[in-house]
Amino acid sequence: MTIGDAPVRVALLGCGVVGSQVARILVEQADDLRERVGRPLELVGIGVRRDIPRPGIDPALLTTDVASLVRREDVDIVVEMVGGIEPTLTYLLDAIAAGKSVVTANKALLAQHGDAVFDAARDSDVDVYYEAAVAGAIPIIRPLRESLVGDAITSVLGIVNGTTNYILDQMHTRKSTFADALAEAQSLGYAEADPTADVEGYDAAAKAAILASLAFHTRVHLDDVDREGITEIDVQDIAAAERLGCVVKLLARCTVSADGTVAVGVHPTMVPLEHPLAGIRGAYNAVFVESVNAGRLMFMGPGAGGSPTASAVLGDIVTAARNRVRGVAGPGESAYSTPGITPPGAVRSRYYLSVTVRDEPGVLARVAEAMARQQVSIAAVRQEQGDEGGRAHLGITTHEATHDAVRAVVTHLMSTDDVHGGVRVLRVEGA
Amino acid sequence: MTIGDAPVRVALLGCGVVGSQVARILVEQADDLRERVGRPLELVGIGVRRDIPRPGIDPALLTTDVASLVRREDVDIVVEMVGGIEPTLTYLLDAIAAGKSVVTANKALLAQHGDAVFDAARDSDVDVYYEAAVAGAIPIIRPLRESLVGDAITSVLGIVNGTTNYILDQMHTRKSTFADALAEAQSLGYAEADPTADVEGYDAAAKAAILASLAFHTRVHLDDVDREGITEIDVQDIAAAERLGCVVKLLARCTVSADGTVAVGVHPTMVPLEHPLAGIRGAYNAVFVESVNAGRLMFMGPGAGGSPTASAVLGDIVTAARNRVRGVAGPGESAYSTPGITPPGAVRSRYYLSVTVRDEPGVLARVAEAMARQQVSIAAVRQEQGDEGGRAHLGITTHEATHDAVRAVVTHLMSTDDVHGGVRVLRVEGA
Repeated sequence: MTIGDAPVRVALLGCGVVGSQVARILVEQADDLRERVGRPLELVGIGVRRDIPRPGIDPALLTTDVASLVRREDVDIVVEMVGGIEPTLTYLLDAIAAGKSVVTANKALLAQHGDAVFDAARDSDVDVYYEAAVAGAIPIIRPLRESLVGDAITSVLGIVNGTTNYILDQMHTRKSTFADALAEAQSLGYAEADPTADVEGYDAAAKAAILASLAFHTRVHLDDVDREGITEIDVQDIAAAERLGCVVKLLARCTVSADGTVAVGVHPTMVPLEHPLAGIRGAYNAVFVESVNAGRLMFMGPGAGGSPTASAVLGDIVTAARNRVRGVAGPGESAYSTPGITPPGAVRSRYYLSVTVRDEPGVLARVAEAMARQQVSIAAVRQEQGDEGGRAHLGITTHEATHDAVRAVVTHLMSTDDVHGGVRVLRVEGA
Repeated sequence: MTIGDAPVRVALLGCGVVGSQVARILVEQADDLRERVGRPLELVGIGVRRDIPRPGIDPALLTTDVASLVRREDVDIVVEMVGGIEPTLTYLLDAIAAGKSVVTANKALLAQHGDAVFDAARDSDVDVYYEAAVAGAIPIIRPLRESLVGDAITSVLGIVNGTTNYILDQMHTRKSTFADALAEAQSLGYAEADPTADVEGYDAAAKAAILASLAFHTRVHLDDVDREGITEIDVQDIAAAERLGCVVKLLARCTVSADGTVAVGVHPTMVPLEHPLAGIRGAYNAVFVESVNAGRLMFMGPGAGGSPTASAVLGDIVTAARNRVRGVAGPGESAYSTPGITPPGAVRSRYYLSVTVRDEPGVLARVAEAMARQQVSIAAVRQEQGDEGGRAHLGITTHEATHDAVRAVVTHLMSTDDVHGGVRVLRVEGA
């Protein structure tokens, strides 16, 4: 490769936790980056909402006129680190229309408006790279889009939200309540003041949509993802999981159903300790991929944080810049497949049901019969603890069943006198 | 992407365990591959040594005239699955000179002649992809070459040979001897009749050279790799590792030394159970990467086998074909850096020393003094077992020390009357 002099020029949108790290690395590692790209990478502008002094940042680079920055003639690559949907989407589409390549970590935007962005990029023959949008520093987009592109992926399971993994890990290891573990995550900066996007699974759902789109060469929208957060996970669930040799994880699950449709969901799930995902601790992320030929692969690493996310962003910037130097765009994702989405009620999983019943002869038989009527096959039953008031707790694990069938069982059980209170239902990973 | 009709034409060299799987997938998944490439992938010829019938393979494709096949005008991509150095290297250079892109899994060839191959590919503006050369199905080449290209990698540790990992795993879990575990690996097809390349670490050393070249943007040759096999690992080593809370792994280790030079070695190493690599079982492979910004990443999966290796090869074929469709070559590796190789004796590591000494007052003091004289700092000493003949066994773990210093300690100890027999030395991973 010839080292040229004309720089590849980068505009950065946003100068927060990640953006400031990207700016730092562009300066600190300028010599290495120049060698790797073949030309200098030059940061020519930083779009910010408020024009305030930022330590370590040349004030001359800052501008609040982001709309103009993304179209400036002296910009080759726009790196979007502001998040949100609008005006960000407009910025990105304007940049693409003006012939800029785009690097983004904006999972919510891609999960909702990926179609518009990718189609525009194809029309303008520019790159859209987004390695940092899923699982932070872990290379997972490129492996799915390129390394495994000659294989047939059958499932992708991911721990893709570090905040919830930290909280659930604390609930297991320190027997914290959800509220206490959340408060601790917030005090450590792992959770935001408004933790909704994390604990309700919205963040993981956006990432699941992106993973499923790549794995199955289709386009999965955020709305296609069946989503359940972890706010109702309590100490009883944690204890029940441990009795079963499992840990509770918030699992993004992208699979192919028997009819060829694609099931994409995010649910708190009991994961057996022998599964590689069970060992992912703290705020770490991991993605577990199964394919016809490669078999089982796992990728793990830091799922968030300024520097790790910046590492993924820089990898994308260098790749986009190398393409610029060669005067081409890289191949985009293929999205030729239209398998359709499995309705959430038809998705099959193993389940765990926790039921409080009258401690009388015949009750278990009636519970078992109610399950059999819905084709829900019992794998194991254990009476988990006695109770003072003539009640017993049953912990039932099932073989694979549809969510609709399990819901019908629950509805029936709660209509009988045999059951006290609600029925707690959790998914269980594994065949 | 427009789906064109003109096929991208593939010539396959070799039709063995991996080659036959590649041929199978090219046929079975032709529809999906066409969509992903944008044009059909057509297998136009298979070069073989002996012209014998091969089940499932169209005989019209087979040719023993490999030298002509690699230069045929109707070939776009040459997929090399024959292994060995010559005539394979000539085939590859001829193919590249004739403008073909190349996909190979030949780690030995790349570790010894990578310079010639990569330079030729650059001159001819064609692709050389080799994802299957290291860690089988695990995407690691592309993550190092592209995803982490904006980061500064500080170390790569790998379990990159499934045969030796299987043998060591059996020695731990079933207390097998090395000979028994090797025999079992051979009977299961995990080890070849002549296991030298695996058990003596040559295979892992070639992979280490490739990983270090990519991680540090330089060119590391097989001869630069300090290599030690596992044939001398015995049940005492395994037991000692377990007493220290470790497992023995054959570890490929690529690190940056304090003076900026690069240390690349393959050694049986005690890995603490809490390290993610300690959990890699059986014939699985894993690569553990640390970088300044991303932090700690790990990639794991099947390290060998026809289908897993074919998955990686197909990913490379699709990527090379996509580039052909676009009329470009992808960016190659950057190898601009010339840090130099740390002399093996100067590489720093923690060590474990097992010494049989006279069970007398003053002996431990003299051993400790000998170590101090060489600046080898003791982390822990335990008297591991008593002995009938007035002897004691010492298990000593050290802080980081150079290999030269440890060797000097051993030489000195063996020259004294205090020590009986040899001194067993193993590396210990961890800071």
